[in-house]
Order: sequence, then C-alpha cells, then structure tokens
Amino acid sequence: MKLQVTQENLAKALNSVARVANTRGTLPILANVALKTVGTRLTIAATDLDIAITHYIGSKVSDEGSITVPAKLMQDFVNTLPSGVIELHLDDYKLNISTEQYKSVINGISAEEFPVMPDITGGKTWTIESAVFKKGLQQVLIAAGNDEARPVLTGLYLHSVDGELIMAATDSYRLAEKVLMKTSEDIDLLVPANAMQDLLRLIDDKEERIEITNDDQQVKFKVGDIELVARLIEGKYPEYQKLIPKEFKSSATLKRADLLNITKVSSLFARESAGSITINLDSEEKKINIHSIASQLGENTAAADAKVSEDGDITLNSRYLLDALGVMNGDEISISFNGKLEPCVLSDAKAKDYTHVVMPLKS
Amino acid sequence: MKLQVTQENLAKALNSVARVANTRGTLPILANVALKTVGTRLTIAATDLDIAITHYIGSKVSDEGSITVPAKLMQDFVNTLPSGVIELHLDDYKLNISTEQYKSVINGISAEEFPVMPDITGGKTWTIESAVFKKGLQQVLIAAGNDEARPVLTGLYLHSVDGELIMAATDSYRLAEKVLMKTSEDIDLLVPANAMQDLLRLIDDKEERIEITNDDQQVKFKVGDIELVARLIEGKYPEYQKLIPKEFKSSATLKRADLLNITKVSSLFARESAGSITINLDSEEKKINIHSIASQLGENTAAADAKVSEDGDITLNSRYLLDALGVMNGDEISISFNGKLEPCVLSDAKAKDYTHVVMPLKS
Repeated sequence: MKLQVTQENLAKALNSVARVANTRGTLPILANVALKTVGTRLTIAATDLDIAITHYIGSKVSDEGSITVPAKLMQDFVNTLPSGVIELHLDDYKLNISTEQYKSVINGISAEEFPVMPDITGGKTWTIESAVFKKGLQQVLIAAGNDEARPVLTGLYLHSVDGELIMAATDSYRLAEKVLMKTSEDIDLLVPANAMQDLLRLIDDKEERIEITNDDQQVKFKVGDIELVARLIEGKYPEYQKLIPKEFKSSATLKRADLLNITKVSSLFARESAGSITINLDSEEKKINIHSIASQLGENTAAADAKVSEDGDITLNSRYLLDALGVMNGDEISISFNGKLEPCVLSDAKAKDYTHVVMPLKS
Repeated sequence: MKLQVTQENLAKALNSVARVANTRGTLPILANVALKTVGTRLTIAATDLDIAITHYIGSKVSDEGSITVPAKLMQDFVNTLPSGVIELHLDDYKLNISTEQYKSVINGISAEEFPVMPDITGGKTWTIESAVFKKGLQQVLIAAGNDEARPVLTGLYLHSVDGELIMAATDSYRLAEKVLMKTSEDIDLLVPANAMQDLLRLIDDKEERIEITNDDQQVKFKVGDIELVARLIEGKYPEYQKLIPKEFKSSATLKRADLLNITKVSSLFARESAGSITINLDSEEKKINIHSIASQLGENTAAADAKVSEDGDITLNSRYLLDALGVMNGDEISISFNGKLEPCVLSDAKAKDYTHVVMPLKS
C-alpha cells in the first residue's frame, strides 16, 4: 500500500470512526482502525461488532493494499500534524507515515483479521432530509433507556403510521415522539440508540439527505462519504401511543425560557430528593409555581406567568423536565396533565409534531 | 441582617470565593461562605484554614448582620437567578433570598462559628503591576511541586536579589524563574503555590496594581475588591540559582511554534515511556530532530529548522518541555545544554527575564 492523502481529509475520517474503536474489549484488533484502498479512494473503518463506521476519502493511490493500526495513536497523531499532504507507505505490517517534517512508523495488524459486518442484501432503501432527521434525533434520543436488561427500550423506534414516519424512544419514565415526514414506505425499525448517538455526530450540515437501507438484521445509514451500519434490536416495541393522553384536565401555556429558568433554580434545591419538584398551576393568579425542598439546606419557590386552564399539582423529576425543555424549539410551550399520578405531557404550543411525556413521581 | 445587592455582584463574589470552601473537610462550616455587612458593603468570605478569600461588594443595607450558608448551593443558586436586584433577609438562622420570581430559604450556621484568619500586624506593604504579576504566575507556577512531603517545593518563592524582584518555583525536576521588576524592598516570601493558583483566577485585567502585605506568618494580596490571605511556608528555599548554567556547549535557536509542534507529535509516541523523547541538535543540517519510541506501537522522528551552535543529544520528559513552551512568549526560543546529564535551559531568544530549566532523563 502506498498513497497520498491530505491531513485534513485523513483527520476528519479518523475523527468520524475512531470513537467506535474500543481499547477495553477482549479482541485487541477492535482498538484498531482499518485502512484500505478502494479504487482511487481510501476507506477508514472501525467497528465494535454492534456498529461499524466507514469513511471514504479521496487519495492518490500508487499501490493498493490494506492494514489496521491503533485507532487512538493514529487519530491523535494525524490530528497533530500540520495541514498538507501525508504519504502512507506500508512495509510488511509497518505503516510509514511521512510529511516534510515528520517520519513515523506505526506497527499494524493484518486487515484480514479485521471483523467485517455482513452485507445488507435484498433490503429496501429510502431517504430523508438530513436536517429533519438530525433534529429528530436530538429531540428523541434523550428519552431512550440504557438498561441492558431491557434491550427493547435501548432502541430508537422508527415506524410508519397512517402515512407518516415517526421516531420514538422511552425508558419507561419518559417518552419522546417526533413526526418526521410523510411517507409511503412501510417502515418498522428498532435501531440501537447509541448507534444513533454516533450517527448524530456524523451528520454534517452540508449533506442534504440521508440514505437508509435495511434488511431483517441490519440497517445502514449513508451520510455523504460516511456509512454507519448497526445491528437491529430484536423484539416488539411497546405500544407506547396508547400511553399518551389526548385530553387534559389541567394545562398551562407559558414561555419556554421562563419554565426552563424556574425549573433550573428549583432543581438546585432538589438534589437531595432525586430531583423531585412539585409543580402547581394556579388559574386565579395565572401562575405556574414550582416548589422544592432540600431538607437540611432549605427550600425554594419559583413562579412564572402562565395561561392556566384549571388548578392542578404534579411532582416530577426536574432532570427529565430540564432535558425535555432543552430540546424543544418553540417560544411557547404547554404542560398538561390529568391528575397527580397521570402522565404529564409537554408540547410546543404551536408545532404539534413533537410530544414529550414525563411520568410523575409519587409525592 | 437585611439588604439588597445585584445578582451580578453577588454572583461574581461567590464565584471568587466559593472555590476555597471545601465540603470534604472534617469541619462542616468550612463548606460554607460567610456573608457579613460592613458599613454599606457586604463581605463574602470562604476559607480552608490555609487560604482565606474575601470579596467586598456594594449593597443597600437596611439591617446589619452576618450568617454562613452552604457555598455550593448559594453559588449555584445565585448564578442561576436572572440579573437584577436580590433581597437578602436573615430570620433567625434562615437566610431568605427573594427576587420578583423566586423566594428561597437557605438554612445557615452562625457566623460566630466561622474561623477567621488572624490579622496581619506590623508587616510591610508594597505593590506590583497586576499584568506583570499575572504573567509571572502563569509562567512560573507550572514548575511548582505538589509533594506534601517536601513542603518547601510546594511554594512560590518571591525574593529580591540585587535590586530586582524575582519569582521562582521548582519541583526538583524542572525550575522556572522570572524577573518581575526593579525594587528597593528587601523581599523574601515563600507563598503556597496553590494559593497563587487561586490568586491567578482572581486577577482581573481591569485592576492596575496588586497590593501585597506580609508579616512573619502570613501574606495578603489585595486585588481591587478582593483580598486573599495565605499562610507562609516555613523553611529555607534551595539556592536554586547555582543550578542554572550560564554557558552552554550545544544550543539551538528556532521558532517556538516549530519546537512546540514537533514536541507535541513526538510526545504521542512517548506515552509508554513516561514522556521520554530524545532531542538531537545537528549543526551540519541546521536541524533539531526529536526521536521517540513506543515499543509496541511504533516510532517517530520529527525535525525542524534551527540555528545550531554545536551537535548534541539530550533526553527530556516531553510533558515538561510542552509545559514550558506553552507559557513562553517570544516567536524565537533557545534550547541549550552542556551534556546528556546536565540541565537543559529554555529561554526566549530576545527577552532575558524568563528562564526555564528541565533536568534530563537518563537514556
């Protein structure tokens, strides 16, 4: 293998893929990135056996070939090099990397030992606007679970309902749902949420569309020069839509920034009580009040102006409320519930495509 | 106690002092900040018994008084409040904090239980330009030790020699010395380096001068509205100046950015060998070469153009070299030594007020 690439392209590709490489695993080669010439391009790839990311960059190839090298060293090294042309030259299993000022040798392992994800065969392909998918991921992934004992809840659920593509996630304490676009496809995919966190990092604002291909086992996301392949999660996703109430007894509409501020302040006093804050809607005073108590340290009451339909109280985990408010968009939001033990729903007062449900705490 | 302050001033003062408060100590009150009215001002103070910081802010005092409250909660709370007027009202040992939107109660402990550093009596006072002192701290503190078994080396040594005020620190592996200004005072102070790290954070670019007062036990630094008092370290500082060579066999002069870059890249290959890199000066090729070896992973050679007096080799800890280059100023620097086992001296090629010595590694 002998070729030339620019430092900028190689650094970008290594930064895309190296995160997936894992030095703590049992298989040492998974701490490596694989470099391989493909025609006039170089592929840089890493995998943890659940997710594989491959980045294609342009290169001037003199001799074809492939090798794997330690991901972290290669990434740090190339990131530290000055911009300009880098020559890669493989000599046995030693990768010689040279620029005008630097001559390095990094010891590699044969690319033949590198695990390859199976090809996706006979699947279907569809596309979605990158900006829409990215925004959806930002708004929904926060609700995904990370309890490996409940693998279905560690997934992001992409499914089509009545001609609409919907993205959802829940850890059973909270739930986020986003309507992404109209679609004529029949889609039902349960994708690992951590793979989608990786994809989120990779979606460049320059790319217009993401291409998605899947079969029964795997799904591939293609964003510009990058491909991410993930194993699908097996199992049936809960029928979460039944859990979202459609009508409410108490509801308040107010500026999102106001609710965010009073929740932040209240959460400081809720550190001892696992984030527990009590929300009170006061229709007479036209206020939303949040009360929190730190038994040893003190207590806090914060208030903001709001349009209130009917008085009500509910106790929530302030962290969940902060997470939800942090990813919502509109200037005005609604917070609605039917009683102290019923789900609390947050939504944009205008756009109706995003719904966030938080289960109450017993108070 | 009843008074009004602005959120901006109170937040700034809490941010100055709260870092010194310590929740892990044996004395719970040391996790608190003390608030006390002094005429028309409010003092906010914290101490860890070695260092005390007091910040004075303007306030509208209705009733005098004092209290201590948990530093972290108070700091986080006030930082989260919107800008504007905050009212503080002490009711027994409960501090009521209110703004238009927020009403909080923080439980306090009597200020009478708060430890006070003894006054500095009969000491002398002198001043120094803030910018000069700040720059000096940035350049010298990196060389201070943190081994409590050798307390003298955990200090920053401020002393006058032949009419010049000099600042120095060494951990015995490296040494930094800065000539600060001409002085007619007779100064000999060994100040805890960690107190000087705190002072460094507090030096505002707006303040023109720092006022320094000391007696045999303590030293006080006054920067604008902030006072920092620290206990002096007892013991005799080593006669470090004898260890700085004045003449050199081998010396190279080059761009600081070039040496920084090749050292950075080389250090990546030196992680397994405790940062060990070997520097070679080549007078014929007019180059400085750095070689580093990561036994398992590979090796690296990096080169930069330099004016070289005579060939030579020396092995250094790359981290020390990076630290030193990171705080130096000039575009051009010199690296000089007499032999493989002799101290290596880094200095600005033009300004002669800063000297950084790194002891070599055996290679």
